[in-house]
This record gives sequence, structure tokens and C-alpha cells, in this order.
Amino acid sequence: MEKGSGSRINQIWGNLVTFVRRSIFCVLSVGPIPNHIAFIMDGNRRYGKKQNLMEGTGHRVGFLALMSMLKYCYEFGVRYVTIYAFSIDNFKRHPEEVQSLMDLMQEKIEGLIKEESIVNRYGVRVHFLGNLKLLSEPVRLAAERAMMATANNSKAVLSICVAYTSTNEIVHAVQKSCEEKWEEISKLNTSGSGYGLIQLGWNEKDERENLIKLIDIEKHMYMAVAPDPDILIRTSGETRLSNFLLWQSAYCSLYSPSVLWPEIGFRHFLWAILNFQRNHFYLEKKRKQL
Amino acid sequence: MEKGSGSRINQIWGNLVTFVRRSIFCVLSVGPIPNHIAFIMDGNRRYGKKQNLMEGTGHRVGFLALMSMLKYCYEFGVRYVTIYAFSIDNFKRHPEEVQSLMDLMQEKIEGLIKEESIVNRYGVRVHFLGNLKLLSEPVRLAAERAMMATANNSKAVLSICVAYTSTNEIVHAVQKSCEEKWEEISKLNTSGSGYGLIQLGWNEKDERENLIKLIDIEKHMYMAVAPDPDILIRTSGETRLSNFLLWQSAYCSLYSPSVLWPEIGFRHFLWAILNFQRNHFYLEKKRKQL
Repeated sequence: MEKGSGSRINQIWGNLVTFVRRSIFCVLSVGPIPNHIAFIMDGNRRYGKKQNLMEGTGHRVGFLALMSMLKYCYEFGVRYVTIYAFSIDNFKRHPEEVQSLMDLMQEKIEGLIKEESIVNRYGVRVHFLGNLKLLSEPVRLAAERAMMATANNSKAVLSICVAYTSTNEIVHAVQKSCEEKWEEISKLNTSGSGYGLIQLGWNEKDERENLIKLIDIEKHMYMAVAPDPDILIRTSGETRLSNFLLWQSAYCSLYSPSVLWPEIGFRHFLWAILNFQRNHFYLEKKRKQL
Repeated sequence: MEKGSGSRINQIWGNLVTFVRRSIFCVLSVGPIPNHIAFIMDGNRRYGKKQNLMEGTGHRVGFLALMSMLKYCYEFGVRYVTIYAFSIDNFKRHPEEVQSLMDLMQEKIEGLIKEESIVNRYGVRVHFLGNLKLLSEPVRLAAERAMMATANNSKAVLSICVAYTSTNEIVHAVQKSCEEKWEEISKLNTSGSGYGLIQLGWNEKDERENLIKLIDIEKHMYMAVAPDPDILIRTSGETRLSNFLLWQSAYCSLYSPSVLWPEIGFRHFLWAILNFQRNHFYLEKKRKQL
């Protein structure tokens, strides 16, 4: 009986919190809503150490914080969320730590496909972005399954950067652009004249210099699935991008709350939104100048 | 007589300030010294408006603040300083404002070459980086003269980014890399076999994809003249990079004091150095992971 009334109080409390949160969102949504928020989830390991938790538990608590953040974003109407889940540099950590993170990732990715997952609740399409060939096979297959399973969700987008660095993304986009140009040249060559390079303008120095353009590179970026982020949140008070979305963050505000990732909460989300709304008109003017 | 004693007091005060500053630098230099500091000088216009100054005076006061910052950097032993003087996007401001900024730039660049300038006092080599073709001819010629005149200075380096954006720098580096590869191919073709592309490995899909590598792009960056910055300081409390050194700031800390650029002073420089020293070992560890 006591247990029943306890859980009823919890339920009422939960409903009240949700009601207050939604009311705040209602008021805030009179102002501009960011289209895209990106997160660098820094401080999971440090949180584990600080709280004397078992190895890997910090990341598990961090996953719960991520679920809350996603809920806030999608409830508020943010259409695109991008997270830095695993950098290419992270592969240089201790093999056991990498393995344990990969196992956790596989478990959580598999959870995403489930009927009751946050992804299905909010109609979120999931993309895994990065050099996925670097992932172990089970994780890569799980990622591919999750992308397939959510391909028809169209209300929001969650981009999960794994085996990712921004410089790798840029070099990859350049290489894809080269390959595409090469294929154009080859097609022209085999279709008759054999002067494909010349037909494409490679005869003139200026044209040759401009063979690969900004638009070609942008088209081949992993992040071409989303517009540039409006806000980039990095926890632990760190003000570095750590090779995350460098190209896409040219005009984006970095917000660095001093808490560790598992400690991030609704107040930090609110603060980020308020700051975004305060700067919005100035930012819009800047963007229009481009 | 009164004037004479007044200027003597000023001189004594100036010497005392310099002595205290150098003593602080002496203590600080026991710790690590940043190799490269980059500045986004934000807030000159707003400072002019705030102080009810004549149009353009904010930028003139900002120039004095820059001279102080350069003095602090070179006195402390920072070898590389990079400043964002004029973005490609800035060309979209009112033509009169652009003209007035160009005039100021020309005047100040010509001042750099003078015997008594800060550049010659500290043995600084000056580079102007960006799409210099976009500058008006007098400014471009002044920039070229300054680069020539300081080419033999070897104690420190000042990189002035004008007509610069980071995306433009990256695309330019990609185009230069393509051009270089094309010249290699052409040479092989004209030297006999006519199979230059095949000899360079364009025959195989994997090789074709990797024709342009990270190292090619980095070699052709304007910023190849300096190592990546250790600290990036942007005034006005803004936490955006505004398309400045995106590629090079992958692992660099952004420090955003809330003052406008002309208000930046010794205490901000000191704070940036102390923060850098505090984070140094953590950053070094991160860098070694690359």
C-alpha cells in the first residue's frame, strides 16, 4: 500500500514537472526556435571517477543525460540534433576502454530501434556519420540497422558522429569530389572524343584551379544531412571544438557550461536557448551577409 | 618647468609599469609559454558608438589595443601571433565603411615598415594571408611591400588575415592541391608514355579516391606559415569563430572576455595565459593522442 502511494506521488510529481517544462517551452516558443543543436558530451569518465563509480558507469549515466537532452530538444521543436559520440582519436584510448565503449554503443543502438524508444516516440530519423569502416562489425551492422529502421521517420533528425573528426570529414569530402570529377572525365572519354579533361575545362589554368568548388565539397560532407548548427554545447567548461563540426560551426555559438556531461540538466538547456534567442537577430544579420 | 616634471613623472610611471609587467612575465615564463595566439578583434564599431566617437575612430583605438597586445605577446616570448583583420564577408558592409577601413589598413601597413615600428623593434616577420586579389591595389601593394621589407626578420611572426575566411582558405588549398596533381599528371604525359594518370595510380578506384591527401591540403593552407594556435581570443564575449581558423582551431581553447576589443588590456592577456598554463598538460596529452 505504501509502495503504491509512493509510486503515485512520483507519478504526480513527474506529471507536474512535465507540465511546468511544457509551459516554459510554450512561452519560449514565441521567440525563435533553434533548428539544430549539437552536443559534445564531455566529462563522462571524470563523472565516474568523481562519484567513485565502476569503470564505464559514467558513460551509462551520460547516456541517460543524453536521453533527457533529446527529449527537451524534440519537445521544444528543435528539428536537428547532432552528437559527438566517438572521435577517431578515441580509438587511441586503452583497448579495453574502446571495447567497453563499443559494447555500450552497440547495446544503446539496438535499444534505439525498439518500439518504445525515444527515436520512435518523436519520429526521429537516425544517421550515423563518420568513417564507419573503422567500427567493429557488430557496431557497424547495428548502426546500419538503426538507420534502415528509422529511414521513414520524418519529424526530426538525430545525427550520431562516430569514428568522426572534422578534418577527416573534409578530406573525405574532397576525395569524393575528386572521384566524382574523375568519373565525369572518364565518361566523356569513353563516350567518344577522348578529350574529357579538355571538355571539362581542364585545358585552361584558371578552370583547372577551380575544378573542385565549395559546393562540391559541401555536397559530400557527412553533415550534408543537416543545416549548420545554431548552438554547440560542450560540457565540462571546455571551450574547444576537439575536431567536431569545424566546417559547420563557422557562425555558431559555443556554450560551455562547467558541469560534467552526466550532470547537464534542464537549466543548462534553458540557458542555451535564452542565449540563442538573445543573439538571434544579430546572428541572422550576420548570416545574411554571407 | 611644470610640464617638464609632469613628463618626468609619466616616464617614471611608464618605467615602473614596464618593470612590473616584465617581472610578472619572468614568473609566468617558468610555466609553458604558448607558441601561437590568435585574435578576433571584435567590438571596434560598438566601442566607437558607445563612446560617441566619430565614424572610424573605434577602429583607430582598436589598433592601439592591438599594438599593446602584440607588445605583451612578443615580450612574453609568444613566437606566432595571428589576427583576423578583415573577413571576405566584411566586403559586404557599406562601401564607405569598407573604403574607410581599407584606407586605415593601408596607413597602418605603411607604418609597419618604418624603422621604429613594433615589427622592427621585435624582429617580426609579417605575412598577409587570404585572397589578397580581393584587396584594392594600394592596400595589396602596401601588404606586399611590408612582407618583402620584413622577410628577413626571424624572431617572431605576425600573420594578418585579410580578405580571409576559413572555408575560402580550405577550398583554395583543395584547388591548389588539384592543380599540383594535375601538373604531375601533365608532366608524366608529356615526358613520354601518355599514361600519366595511370602512372599516378588513377587506374585503381581506391587510389583515385585518395589522390588528394590531408598532407596536400595542409601544405597549401595560407596558415601553413604557423603552427596551430594554442589560444584563440575573441573579445565582446562572443563564442563564435566567425569563419576564422576553423581548420587550425580543432584543439585550441577559445577565450572570450566580455570587453570590446579597444578595451582589452594586460589583465585579459594574463588571464588567457594563466588558463592556458592550467590546461597545458591536459591539452598536451590530447595532442599526443592524434
